[in-house]
Amino acid sequence: MDLKSEIQSLAKSQFEEIKGIREHLHRNPELSFEEFETAKFISKTLSDWGIEHQTGVAETGTVVLIKGKNPDKKVTALRADIDALPITEQNDVPYKSQNIGVMHACGHDVHTSSMLGTVKILNQLKEHFEGTIKVIFQPGEEKVPGGASKMIKEGVLKSPDVNNIIGQHVMPLIDAGKVGFRSGMYMASTDELYMKIIGKGGHGAMPELNVDPVIITAHILVALQQIVSRHASPKIPSVLSFGKIIADGATNVIPNEVYLEGTFRTMDEEWRASAHQKMRKMAEGMAESMGAKCEFEIRNGYPFLVNEPELTERAKSNAIEFLGEENVEELDLWLAAEDFAYFSQATDACFYRLGVRNETKGINSSVHTPTFDIDPLALETGMGLMAWLAIKELESK
Amino acid sequence: MDLKSEIQSLAKSQFEEIKGIREHLHRNPELSFEEFETAKFISKTLSDWGIEHQTGVAETGTVVLIKGKNPDKKVTALRADIDALPITEQNDVPYKSQNIGVMHACGHDVHTSSMLGTVKILNQLKEHFEGTIKVIFQPGEEKVPGGASKMIKEGVLKSPDVNNIIGQHVMPLIDAGKVGFRSGMYMASTDELYMKIIGKGGHGAMPELNVDPVIITAHILVALQQIVSRHASPKIPSVLSFGKIIADGATNVIPNEVYLEGTFRTMDEEWRASAHQKMRKMAEGMAESMGAKCEFEIRNGYPFLVNEPELTERAKSNAIEFLGEENVEELDLWLAAEDFAYFSQATDACFYRLGVRNETKGINSSVHTPTFDIDPLALETGMGLMAWLAIKELESK
Amino acid sequence: MDLKSEIQSLAKSQFEEIKGIREHLHRNPELSFEEFETAKFISKTLSDWGIEHQTGVAETGTVVLIKGKNPDKKVTALRADIDALPITEQNDVPYKSQNIGVMHACGHDVHTSSMLGTVKILNQLKEHFEGTIKVIFQPGEEKVPGGASKMIKEGVLKSPDVNNIIGQHVMPLIDAGKVGFRSGMYMASTDELYMKIIGKGGHGAMPELNVDPVIITAHILVALQQIVSRHASPKIPSVLSFGKIIADGATNVIPNEVYLEGTFRTMDEEWRASAHQKMRKMAEGMAESMGAKCEFEIRNGYPFLVNEPELTERAKSNAIEFLGEENVEELDLWLAAEDFAYFSQATDACFYRLGVRNETKGINSSVHTPTFDIDPLALETGMGLMAWLAIKELESK
Amino acid sequence: MDLKSEIQSLAKSQFEEIKGIREHLHRNPELSFEEFETAKFISKTLSDWGIEHQTGVAETGTVVLIKGKNPDKKVTALRADIDALPITEQNDVPYKSQNIGVMHACGHDVHTSSMLGTVKILNQLKEHFEGTIKVIFQPGEEKVPGGASKMIKEGVLKSPDVNNIIGQHVMPLIDAGKVGFRSGMYMASTDELYMKIIGKGGHGAMPELNVDPVIITAHILVALQQIVSRHASPKIPSVLSFGKIIADGATNVIPNEVYLEGTFRTMDEEWRASAHQKMRKMAEGMAESMGAKCEFEIRNGYPFLVNEPELTERAKSNAIEFLGEENVEELDLWLAAEDFAYFSQATDACFYRLGVRNETKGINSSVHTPTFDIDPLALETGMGLMAWLAIKELESK
Repeated sequence: MDLKSEIQSLAKSQFEEIKGIREHLHRNPELSFEEFETAKFISKTLSDWGIEHQTGVAETGTVVLIKGKNPDKKVTALRADIDALPITEQNDVPYKSQNIGVMHACGHDVHTSSMLGTVKILNQLKEHFEGTIKVIFQPGEEKVPGGASKMIKEGVLKSPDVNNIIGQHVMPLIDAGKVGFRSGMYMASTDELYMKIIGKGGHGAMPELNVDPVIITAHILVALQQIVSRHASPKIPSVLSFGKIIADGATNVIPNEVYLEGTFRTMDEEWRASAHQKMRKMAEGMAESMGAKCEFEIRNGYPFLVNEPELTERAKSNAIEFLGEENVEELDLWLAAEDFAYFSQATDACFYRLGVRNETKGINSSVHTPTFDIDPLALETGMGLMAWLAIKELESK
Repeated sequence: MDLKSEIQSLAKSQFEEIKGIREHLHRNPELSFEEFETAKFISKTLSDWGIEHQTGVAETGTVVLIKGKNPDKKVTALRADIDALPITEQNDVPYKSQNIGVMHACGHDVHTSSMLGTVKILNQLKEHFEGTIKVIFQPGEEKVPGGASKMIKEGVLKSPDVNNIIGQHVMPLIDAGKVGFRSGMYMASTDELYMKIIGKGGHGAMPELNVDPVIITAHILVALQQIVSRHASPKIPSVLSFGKIIADGATNVIPNEVYLEGTFRTMDEEWRASAHQKMRKMAEGMAESMGAKCEFEIRNGYPFLVNEPELTERAKSNAIEFLGEENVEELDLWLAAEDFAYFSQATDACFYRLGVRNETKGINSSVHTPTFDIDPLALETGMGLMAWLAIKELESK
Repeated sequence: MDLKSEIQSLAKSQFEEIKGIREHLHRNPELSFEEFETAKFISKTLSDWGIEHQTGVAETGTVVLIKGKNPDKKVTALRADIDALPITEQNDVPYKSQNIGVMHACGHDVHTSSMLGTVKILNQLKEHFEGTIKVIFQPGEEKVPGGASKMIKEGVLKSPDVNNIIGQHVMPLIDAGKVGFRSGMYMASTDELYMKIIGKGGHGAMPELNVDPVIITAHILVALQQIVSRHASPKIPSVLSFGKIIADGATNVIPNEVYLEGTFRTMDEEWRASAHQKMRKMAEGMAESMGAKCEFEIRNGYPFLVNEPELTERAKSNAIEFLGEENVEELDLWLAAEDFAYFSQATDACFYRLGVRNETKGINSSVHTPTFDIDPLALETGMGLMAWLAIKELESK
Repeated sequence: MDLKSEIQSLAKSQFEEIKGIREHLHRNPELSFEEFETAKFISKTLSDWGIEHQTGVAETGTVVLIKGKNPDKKVTALRADIDALPITEQNDVPYKSQNIGVMHACGHDVHTSSMLGTVKILNQLKEHFEGTIKVIFQPGEEKVPGGASKMIKEGVLKSPDVNNIIGQHVMPLIDAGKVGFRSGMYMASTDELYMKIIGKGGHGAMPELNVDPVIITAHILVALQQIVSRHASPKIPSVLSFGKIIADGATNVIPNEVYLEGTFRTMDEEWRASAHQKMRKMAEGMAESMGAKCEFEIRNGYPFLVNEPELTERAKSNAIEFLGEENVEELDLWLAAEDFAYFSQATDACFYRLGVRNETKGINSSVHTPTFDIDPLALETGMGLMAWLAIKELESK
C-alpha cells in the first residue's frame, strides 16, 4: 500500500475515536489562556497513545516531536489552537457545551481533535519519512496578544529549529471533504483604534468661546479616509472604519470631548506600521491645528498573515494529490485576523481552510455564532491531509 | 411738579408695596401655562386697586386698558411675562421659593411686579395723557410655542388696535438703576435640529457591503458649515451647532444609523426660512447621494426679535431724559431667544433691559441659575421708567 | 440769516465753480501716489482763494488749517481722497477722462472738489465758530498701504492735535441730495490670502508614492470654513472666500503643488488678528499633518472702519437739521474696505455717504465701473453739509 | 533534437534577421491607427517568407493562421501590437526614429518583430503540433478605444474560433532573458474623469449672493474619497485621483465654475460599472444639494486585464520549462491599462512580461520615456518563448 492510501486508511479507521475526542472537547470548552482541563486532556490522550510530549509551553500549550528517520534533516511544524469563545451555544446536540456561556464556536475543538488524529497517524508512520514533525497545540488564539506570540517567545520554533509551519482552520463556506488554499497575502492585521478629541465645550450659540470637538471630529474622520484612499497602495488591501462616536452634549450644548472607536486592517506589516504613524500624525496634527487635542490609542492586534508562496503552492499540489483536484479550492482574501500570523512572520507558513459545511444536513452556520457546528467528515479530511502534507513537506528539498 | 418728577415720586412712594408683591410672586412661582395662582394674584391686586381688567386671555393671561383722555388717539402696549422655571432655588432669602423645584430664576416676578407698579402709576396719571395704554400680563414665555403667540392669536393686539409695544427684561450684567437699549436686530430665532442618518450597518472590515452612516454623518456635518460660512450674509448673525452625536457601533461594527442634535439661531426671518430649506436640502441630498437616508426634523423655536429703530430711538431718548445719560447703555446683540419676538413680528416693538446687578451686595448671578436674585432698586427703576416711556410714546406723533 | 441758511446760500452760489473744478479733476485723473498734477491744482485753487495750506504731506497730500476764534479750543478734521483708478471711462460726457486708462470711477473727484467748496465756505465763516478745522486732501486711497496711514505717520493728526475726523464718500445707491450714516462697525478690513500647498506629484495610479496636494487642498479649504462658522463670533461679520485654485496636473498626473488666492474680511481688529493666526495654524498644521507643506501669505489690507457712535449720532442729528429727516438714511454694513479706516483706528471718526444717484437722468452706475457718474447736485449737498458738520462739531462739548 | 531545443536553435539562428526587423520598425514608427507603412512591412516580410496572411483587419491589422496537423483540434491566438507614441526619441542609436516626434517608446517594435520571429519558427514546425495558431498583429493599442476592441468586433476571435490568447509586453524592470507572469487580476481599467462644478460667481465679500463652486468642489473631492475608502472592496485595487483643478477667479472674485480632471482605475468590471454610478450620483447629488450643478463626463478607457488562472499557470510552468526557474518571475499588480484587456474579457487570456533591461549596458529607462530602449537579447527570448507557449498550449487538453 502506498503512503497516501495508508494515511487515508488510518484516518478512516481512527475516525470514531477522533470524533469522540472532538465531542468531548466541544462539551468542555475553556476560554483563552484558561485551557487547563483541555491541556490535561490533550496530554492524557497523548500519554494513553504512548506519545511523548512537552506540556506547559506558554502555560497551557503542548508540543509533540515526531521524529522520523534522520530527524535533523528538516523540521516541519503543525499547529492547532485549543481555546473557545464566550458564546452560549444554541445547538441542541448530545455534545452541547456543558460550560454555559463558553463554546467552541470557532472550531478549535476540530483543530485540536483532528491534530491529535494527525499525531496518531504520524506516530505510526515514523519509518516512512525523514526529518521531524513538531506538533504545536497552542492556547489563546482568540485573545490579544494571542498564544502564538507567547509560544514563539518561549522558543517553540527553536530546538529543533523549525523550517516551516502549517496550520488549518475550519470554514463553513466550504463543504466538508474539501479544503482551500491561497498563496501570498491571506488574512489581515487587525488593530483597534480608540480616539478622544478634546475641545472646550460651552453654549452652542457662542462658538467663538468654544473649541468645538464635534466639528473637529467630523473633519478628522473625513480626512482619515485618505489613509485608505491616498496613502495606501491600491495593491495592499486596507480598511479603516469607525463604528462608535459619542458626542454627549445637547441641541445647544457643545460637549468638551468626543469619543471614537475604530478598526484598521491591512495586509502588509511595513505599511501597517507606516499607516499607524500617518493616522496618528494626521489626527493629532489636525486636532492641534484646530485648537483641540487628540488622544489616540492604537491597540495592536495580530499581524497580517502571509502564506509563503512556494510552501503554499507545494501544499496545494500535495492536497490535490491527496484529495483530488475537485476538492481543493482557491481562497479569496480574508480581512479578519488570526494569530497564526505570528508564525507567518517568524517562518515560512501555510494556513489553509478545512471545509465543514453540509447543506443537506443544514450545517452552514458561520463561526462565532451560537449555532456553529460541523459535518464530522471534516475530521477525517483534516487529520489525514495534515499528516500527508507534513510528510510530503519533509520530502521536498 | 412736572410729569417726570411726579412719576418718580409715585414710584418711590409705592416701592415697598411693589417689593412686597415681587417677594410674594417669588415665593410662589408657577411653571409655564400653569400660572393659575399667579393670575389670581394679579387680578386680586388690580381689583384691590380698583383697576378694571380682563382675565383668562390665553387662559392665564391678564389685560388692563388704561384710558387717558381721547383714548382712541393712539394705543401703546406694555408687556410683562409671569411664568417661572423648573429650577430649585439655592438662595437663602426670606422670599425663597416655596414651590420646591420651581423658581423665578429669569426675573419674571420682577417684570410682573414692576408692571403692576407701572399700572398703578399710570392709573393715577390718566388725566396727563391722551390715548390708551394696554398692559399685558403674559403667561408661558419659557415654553415653546410661548404665551405671546397664543395671546396674539386671541387678539390681544386688537380692539383697541395696538400701535406699538414695549417690554423689559432683567439683566444681571447691568447695574440696578440702569437700563440698556438696542435698535434693530437684538435677539435670535432659535430652532432645534434633530437628525438621523440611516445607512446600513455591518462589519467594519467589509465596507463595500455597508452604507457607513458614520462617515456620511461626518461629511454632512462638515458640509453644513457652509450654511454659516457661505450661505448666510455676513451681516446677519447666524450660528449652527451640533452638540450631540451618537453612533453606537463598536471598533469593528458599523452601526445602522447615527443620531444628532443641534441648534440654529439667526436674526432675520426670511434668511431663517431659507436656511431651514438649505440645511434640509443639503443634508438630505448628501445622504441620498451617498446611498443613505437623512431624517431631519427642525423644531421651530421663537422668531428673531427686532427692535423697531424709530420707536427704540425714541424710547432710548426718553429713558435718557428720565434716568440721565449715565444710566442708559447700548446693548450688544444677544443670541438667545425670547417670545416677545412674536410681538416684534406683529407690530413695532421695543424690548429693553433692566439692570438688576449690585456687586457690592454680591448680586450678580446669571438668569437661569439657582442663585439668581436682584437688587430691589430695579423695581423702582422699572415701574417708573415703563410708565414714563408709555406716556411719552403716546405723546409722540 | 442764521448759520444754516448762510452755508446753504454759499454752497448754492459757488456751485458752478465747484462743478467746474470737479469736471477739471474728472478730466485729469491720476493714479494712486502719482497725483502730482492734482496736488498742484488743489494748491493753485487754494492759493487763488488766498487760503494758506501745506503741500507735500505724504508727497502729494495737502493740509489746510482754518482757524476760527479761540483756535485751540477744539480741532475737527475733514478728509477728502484725491486719487483715481486704472479704469477706462466709457461715459460720453464733455468732462470725460483725458488720461486714457485712468478714471475717477470711485468719485474722489467729487470728494476733492466738494471739499474745496467746503474750505471756501469755512474760510468765509471763520468768525462764526471757535476752534480749528483741519482739512486733509489725502493721496492714494485705492492702493495698499494707502495714503491715510502714510499721512498719519507724518503726523497729520498732530500739531494741532485733532479731536476727531469726518469723511464722506459717494454712494450710487442713494439719491443725490441725500446722505447716509451708520454708527459703530461700518466697513470691513480686507486682507488678501495667497496660499501654496506643496506635496509631491506623480502618477495618479500610484497615490502611495505621492503626497497629493489636490486632496489636501480640498481638506484645508473645507476645514477653513470653520474660521467663519465656528471661530468667529456670530456678532462680528466675517467672510472668507477663495476665488482661485490652480492645480495644474492632468487626468492621471498629480501636480507637485496647488496655488490658491482668497480674501478675508471682518469688522473687529482683535478678531482679525486672531483669525489670521487661526487660519495660518489650521492650514499649515493640516498640510503638515498630511505630509505636505503650506506656504501661506496674508497681505494685510486696510483695517476695519468704525464710526464712533457719539460723534456719528451727533453728525447724523446735525445732518437731519441741515438736510431734513427725509434726506438722511441709515446705512447697512458694507463689507468693502476704505483707508479712512486708519483714521478711525487713530481717533474718533465718522464716515458718511453722499448720495449721487439720479434715476431720472439715468445716473445709477456702481463705483469702480467705467460708466460711473454723479448728479452734480451732490456737490452742493456735499460741500454745504461738510461745512455745517464741521462747525456744529466744534460747537459740541 | 527535442522540440524545445529546436525552437531555441531556430530563435538563435534567426536572431540577426529579427533584430534587423526590429531596428527597421524602430526607425519608422507610426502613430495609432496610422500604421500604414508598418502594416505593409509586416505583410511584405510574411510574403517574403512565403507565409499566407490576411491584411486590412481593423484597417491596419494583420492576421496569420499557422495550421498544424488536425487544425480544428484547438486554436490558440498570439497577439502583438504595432503602433508607436507621440514622443521624440532622445537615444543616440543607429536605429533612432526617423519620424521626428514619433517613437516606439512602448516597445511595440519589439512585440511586432519578435512575433514575426515566432511566426517564422512556428511555420517551420507545423508538423510538430496539432491545432491552429492564429497570430494577430494589432493596430492602435495606445489610443482609446484601441485596436483590440475593433479587431474583436471584426471577428478576429472567430472563424476559426479561438480557445485562448497569449500576449507579451516589454518590461524594463525585468532583465533581458527573463519573463514575468501573474495569475488573476493583473492590469487596471482606466477611465478618464472630466468634471465641471457650475455655481454662480460674484464678489467674494457677498457669499450669500453666490453659489461658491470652489468650496463645493472641495466638498465633492473630499467626499469622493469614499469611493475608494468605503465603497470599494478592500480586496479590489481601486484608485481615484484628480490631477487638475482650475478655479479661475481672483482673491475676491468667486468664479462661476471649477473644472477638474481625474482618473479612476480598478480591477473588476462589475465594481467599475458600479463605481461610475456611485461617483456620478455622489458628485451630482452633492452639487445639487448645495445649489450648484455638476457636469460629469466619464470617458471609459480599457477594461481591466485578467489573466485566466489555469491558462496562466500552464503558461508559467511551460515558461519555466523553457527558460529555467531562475528566469521566470512572479509579477506584481500593475495599475496601468492595456487594451489586451479586451481579449481577456472575450476569451481566456494570458498577458506576460518580457524582460528587456540590461543594467550593465545602462538599459533601464521606463516605457513612455524618450530614452527607452532594450537589450536585443529580449528578441530571442520573446520569439522563442512565444512559439513554445503556443505549441505547449495546443498540446494541453
